[in-house]
Amino acid sequence: MLESINARTGMAHGASWADSTAQDIDLAARQAQSVASDFARATPGLRAELLRSMGQRLLSAREALVALADRETGLGLPRLNGELDRTVYQLEQFALALDQGAVHLLLDEPAVAGAAPVGRPRMTRIRVPLGPVAVFAASNFPFAFSVAGGDTASALAAGCPVIVKAHPAHPALSLALAEQVQAAVAQCGLPAAVFQLVQGAGIAVGVRLVQAPAVAAVAFTGSLQAGRALADLAAARSRPIPFFGELGSVNPLIVLPSALASGAAERAAALAQSITLGAGQFCTSPGVILVPQGEPGDGFVHALAGQLSQLQPHGMLTAGIRRNFESGVDAWRHAGGAQVLAGLEGNAAATPAATLVQVSAADYLRQPALQHEVFGPAALVVRTQAMNEMLEVLAAIGGTLTATIWGIDGDAAQVTEEVHALVHRATEVAGRVLFAGVPTGVAVTAAQQHGGPYPASTAPATTSVGLAAMDRFLRPVALQDAPDWLIQRY
Amino acid sequence: MLESINARTGMAHGASWADSTAQDIDLAARQAQSVASDFARATPGLRAELLRSMGQRLLSAREALVALADRETGLGLPRLNGELDRTVYQLEQFALALDQGAVHLLLDEPAVAGAAPVGRPRMTRIRVPLGPVAVFAASNFPFAFSVAGGDTASALAAGCPVIVKAHPAHPALSLALAEQVQAAVAQCGLPAAVFQLVQGAGIAVGVRLVQAPAVAAVAFTGSLQAGRALADLAAARSRPIPFFGELGSVNPLIVLPSALASGAAERAAALAQSITLGAGQFCTSPGVILVPQGEPGDGFVHALAGQLSQLQPHGMLTAGIRRNFESGVDAWRHAGGAQVLAGLEGNAAATPAATLVQVSAADYLRQPALQHEVFGPAALVVRTQAMNEMLEVLAAIGGTLTATIWGIDGDAAQVTEEVHALVHRATEVAGRVLFAGVPTGVAVTAAQQHGGPYPASTAPATTSVGLAAMDRFLRPVALQDAPDWLIQRY
Repeated sequence: MLESINARTGMAHGASWADSTAQDIDLAARQAQSVASDFARATPGLRAELLRSMGQRLLSAREALVALADRETGLGLPRLNGELDRTVYQLEQFALALDQGAVHLLLDEPAVAGAAPVGRPRMTRIRVPLGPVAVFAASNFPFAFSVAGGDTASALAAGCPVIVKAHPAHPALSLALAEQVQAAVAQCGLPAAVFQLVQGAGIAVGVRLVQAPAVAAVAFTGSLQAGRALADLAAARSRPIPFFGELGSVNPLIVLPSALASGAAERAAALAQSITLGAGQFCTSPGVILVPQGEPGDGFVHALAGQLSQLQPHGMLTAGIRRNFESGVDAWRHAGGAQVLAGLEGNAAATPAATLVQVSAADYLRQPALQHEVFGPAALVVRTQAMNEMLEVLAAIGGTLTATIWGIDGDAAQVTEEVHALVHRATEVAGRVLFAGVPTGVAVTAAQQHGGPYPASTAPATTSVGLAAMDRFLRPVALQDAPDWLIQRY
Repeated sequence: MLESINARTGMAHGASWADSTAQDIDLAARQAQSVASDFARATPGLRAELLRSMGQRLLSAREALVALADRETGLGLPRLNGELDRTVYQLEQFALALDQGAVHLLLDEPAVAGAAPVGRPRMTRIRVPLGPVAVFAASNFPFAFSVAGGDTASALAAGCPVIVKAHPAHPALSLALAEQVQAAVAQCGLPAAVFQLVQGAGIAVGVRLVQAPAVAAVAFTGSLQAGRALADLAAARSRPIPFFGELGSVNPLIVLPSALASGAAERAAALAQSITLGAGQFCTSPGVILVPQGEPGDGFVHALAGQLSQLQPHGMLTAGIRRNFESGVDAWRHAGGAQVLAGLEGNAAATPAATLVQVSAADYLRQPALQHEVFGPAALVVRTQAMNEMLEVLAAIGGTLTATIWGIDGDAAQVTEEVHALVHRATEVAGRVLFAGVPTGVAVTAAQQHGGPYPASTAPATTSVGLAAMDRFLRPVALQDAPDWLIQRY
């Protein structure tokens, strides 16, 4: 059974809802499949209209939606209003991509006369929708990665019906958002099964959805444990389906000596803000900060600890997330060689304490328990003696959504081979490599890549943010000797 | 233990080789990983040079290689010389793509001033190699999909070291090809671990290779049973890796009434050639022919059976493939409602008989055993009463590499809604849809797509033929606020 919990008080509010049954889920999947061919053949223009209609409805219902989101998540009105704007912008960007018309027709090659291998028929490369997509909503972005968020928008843009599995931490908001999407679907004259919602407090709903024969792909944002379990189910089906899971991420940030030479105080302040943004509940929250041993590094770490001590993160999304955070930072505090620089106490308070713990690179590397993500307003400072240790720490972290390197000069002549090796290593472990700024905040654009090597993503060649998110739900088809009228339809 | 078997006599010839040990395989994977970063940073120009050097060496050694291939596969000199040409052309096409420079840098977006979501930093989308790729060679294309074939070429082009698991049906050829590739690697001044070969008669070698922690991706061409088993192992690793498996395919060919109106005899002759090409040992061999009930269809089927009866396919690749073929056609012959039109006998002969069996669509749909691929020179004619039965047969076949539709008019005004539905269904089940010609013969070009919905492929969004085959081994990375000198390196 699902209840709407006030994130600030922990008290249930209003109605409760029964979990979707196995029959509900199978029916939703079959209905989605029954409309998949028609929706695939809907014009890109109609799909753009659907996305824009969704955006308009979110804007019109903003006040009620944001209030509901605030009650169920405790993320605060400024953040939630900004996130709603971002969600509407995201819908509009996919609509624009559809308008521009490069979604389905990729390449049209004329026939070449002569014998093979040089000679060949006319070949036209197009992309077709995969079919019904199951979207698992995230808890930490109740608009941008939930019912009407990036996964839903990109799947609908691609021409795939969507079945959202609502996140149990914001059930009332999920239903309110689903009503808006359903109204947009109806307004565009599309069948209702183009968008459906299922819900449940336990794992049974998600398991059934991933196993439903009619489901063609899954998009998931959540924990490593849940994501891996569902990915394994998707791979074990008699017809395996792609599982696009965005799981945990450590997001290392490397401070090179040149970044300590000037502006270190401003950098420390920006980093403290990034670590505590949304109480650290961002998949791109910087979790490990690599700082060279020595005086300039000491000063930077001291400034960072001071900034963090002055910040009071708001409450966390759920009691469960809070418990995991406390046990995660406890493990850091009690690790060999650990030194607590901020957040000594706070376990009992209503809100979590911004926490900074420091270890040497040697201590970090010999304790695998330190290499896991701690989801919340905390970071681990790892002090390194040489560039080689930075490479080793990056390798130990393995897959991550982002890696940030501060202090690389814009002047190529000053770049050493060591720096080249560091940048290369960063591209080996991360989906996005930053050379300025902080990793929180992910632009919705064509070049974006949100998804790194496992375990950051179960499908590292794909992104869940940005226009390329659509690529996940489209499959290339080569048309050979196709008539002109057919090619013109793509 | 591996032996070189003469495909025509079944007798062992010359030396035998021990299977690679678990230690050999682990060492190969670690050595590949140890050179992966350096090879990833090799210039695209150097990789193009490697591919061209491989091609030159294949041409220089043509006579010996083709003779060896003919002894171990029995495919005949004309076919094998043509396949060698195609393999060299394939290497050259990837080299050209590297020359043209669009492999790594995908998109460079300038910063946009202002607040998010509109404002954003400079974002540059690049692609980086995945790391060591395990390539499982196919038996049926000893050049084009073996040691120096498409998977190896596309992985090296992408900047990934390759470990080939040789196909046990042509071990002597595999070693001779590997020597040529190794010489090319040395000539280009690259470390030897950029290309390695392992071998074995049993499944242990492949299992160990897929499970080796240092392997980052697998490319496989082979049977559904072996491919699915290895795909499951790849998904079950502690760090799952992508498994690009090209498995079985039925390749339906649909004859619409308008294709029977004229030129039916020529079409029947072309189809008979396609069914028996290479003794039917092509993954794109047409296995199910859909023909409308009635007189014109009867005439076409009669002509096809007549053509097939006059063709004598050459011997098959291995005794095991021959056994599977005979048991497959036996199941067809004894299915309910089956009528044998060609290939009544032949089980005991040295070479297989070209076989044609006919059933009604109703009989086909009610007998799932008929819906599996039979690898060899045989096709099943399915007689349909209405377009709707054609849609149902395509749905029953499910994933396939190709679907061919004969008889669609070039004039859009004459195209019915039924034809639109048929074309759409074909794009739903196939990776390539043909509107003329036969599906055997796969052009190496940018628009090509060789890989359809499961079970045709374990990764239906990817292709194993054509320039997009490289995409399998590259992972996108977004660079945020990167300095110019770095972007210029991609």
